[in-house]
Amino acid sequence: MFRGLSAFPLTPTDEHDIDHRAYATLVSRLAAAGVDSVGALGSTGGYAYLSREQRARAARTAVEAAAGVPVIVSIGALRTSQVLELAEDAQKAGAAGVLLAAMTYQPLTDEEVFGLYEDVTRELSVPLCVYDNPRTTKVRFSTELHGRIARLPHVGSIKIPAVSDDPGEARARVDALRAVVPETVTIGVSGDWAGVRGLNAGCDVWYSAVGGLFPRATLALARAAQAGDAAKADALSDELAPLWDLFTRYGGLRVLSAAASQLGLAAEPNLPRPLLGLDEAARSEVADVLDLLRLTAD
Amino acid sequence: MFRGLSAFPLTPTDEHDIDHRAYATLVSRLAAAGVDSVGALGSTGGYAYLSREQRARAARTAVEAAAGVPVIVSIGALRTSQVLELAEDAQKAGAAGVLLAAMTYQPLTDEEVFGLYEDVTRELSVPLCVYDNPRTTKVRFSTELHGRIARLPHVGSIKIPAVSDDPGEARARVDALRAVVPETVTIGVSGDWAGVRGLNAGCDVWYSAVGGLFPRATLALARAAQAGDAAKADALSDELAPLWDLFTRYGGLRVLSAAASQLGLAAEPNLPRPLLGLDEAARSEVADVLDLLRLTAD
Repeated sequence: MFRGLSAFPLTPTDEHDIDHRAYATLVSRLAAAGVDSVGALGSTGGYAYLSREQRARAARTAVEAAAGVPVIVSIGALRTSQVLELAEDAQKAGAAGVLLAAMTYQPLTDEEVFGLYEDVTRELSVPLCVYDNPRTTKVRFSTELHGRIARLPHVGSIKIPAVSDDPGEARARVDALRAVVPETVTIGVSGDWAGVRGLNAGCDVWYSAVGGLFPRATLALARAAQAGDAAKADALSDELAPLWDLFTRYGGLRVLSAAASQLGLAAEPNLPRPLLGLDEAARSEVADVLDLLRLTAD
Repeated sequence: MFRGLSAFPLTPTDEHDIDHRAYATLVSRLAAAGVDSVGALGSTGGYAYLSREQRARAARTAVEAAAGVPVIVSIGALRTSQVLELAEDAQKAGAAGVLLAAMTYQPLTDEEVFGLYEDVTRELSVPLCVYDNPRTTKVRFSTELHGRIARLPHVGSIKIPAVSDDPGEARARVDALRAVVPETVTIGVSGDWAGVRGLNAGCDVWYSAVGGLFPRATLALARAAQAGDAAKADALSDELAPLWDLFTRYGGLRVLSAAASQLGLAAEPNLPRPLLGLDEAARSEVADVLDLLRLTAD
């Protein structure tokens, strides 16, 4: 399951609740396009802002709309006891796997991060992907800590941040991690502008937010890289440079939120406050880039 | 209310619930010692790890145990709609004021931070203290942003991180902030080793975690500084250097947690997982420092 393209859709949300109809449409588009898995309620899916009940219901919506494509449900929360409840809910909803970031308020020691994964994997029945996202959690995983956690039962993958622009550095990073994790644990890259770089550097999977809204365009990149045609994959990724530029300037979440409403796939606003959508000038840039790159709701 | 010594107690917690008896004892010790306000459910009080129901009940326990001393209740949460619910609960529980940090998962823009305070202050009936804690929230308030937020209705104070060791730099920081906030807004210092430095530099209030467990010793420092005897206050703070050293090495929260259990004021463990208490060697250091400084449960 933790291979190929794992697509992470938005969870369109207003101040009252999730828009389940829009969410089901987003997920079923992914399944129809042929992604390898759906990442429900990831960072792009706003998991951190939703209640336990909202997350359980969204997991059920995603599993149903995915129509047999494996769904990986994010179970992160600040407190271990909450994570255990969310893991139970996700499994009951039919999640094929779970994704766990070490969310923080108080900064955590390495022993505390390890203890979280130890406590949670002990109770799991499905595989877990370790979510290493320093931008949102502020946790810095050392390679040694990744190695310790990867040997826990049920760990099936590690989702790492964007790899270096330099192919040699990117390969060295993936190789260093590969050297300390069991062969059964796959390595996946995040940071959409780095997705192809990660696959070309030996990653097994691309955990992709852009793939959650534009699955066909993203699959073209992923399949080229998976087929070993690094040059073609790089060229296709470079064609999306205007989109990566928007991601860098405004953050991927806000750009994808604006793109989804521009394409009629989500209402406006669709992010939970205090998160705000882009202003009019930035939205206009997003619309122009969608036109330029022929990225549509089809 | 936002003046003098504001003492922030632990909220002793196990994996099931809050220990309300221990919590009430901690709060009533503060009131008996004569602190100027009680900061319930601050960072030291673990607010980020507790459910809405747990926080509402803890607020009621604190208000009752404080016996007339004003209680400031922390209402921070990741989502604005949750903060509004917590504000309502805190006010119903009898909070004299509220404390609000801009908690983050997705990094927030300045406009989003401002929007959070704007949305919340619009609904408040009691004064609010702006909680600037980059260590836990990763939000960096510029002086300009502090000035904008401080002009919102109901804002009564700003809680800033530890000021510089250098008295001139500390004074410059407080003066710069004072220049942009209304006269009705007080400025308070956090970071217990910096409490006296902050008061000596012109802060109106010391928001103190150490004061939440050792109110008499902390009041001696605060009252000396408030009386204008900076040298005496500095000398008293320097006497606590072995404690400040433990705070630096292990974090104030974990040291205070160990101290509370050492003194029989909280059971063990008393922190919510994934947070772990100190190991045996560190606990032994904490016990030695309590003995050396004659810090007791009296």
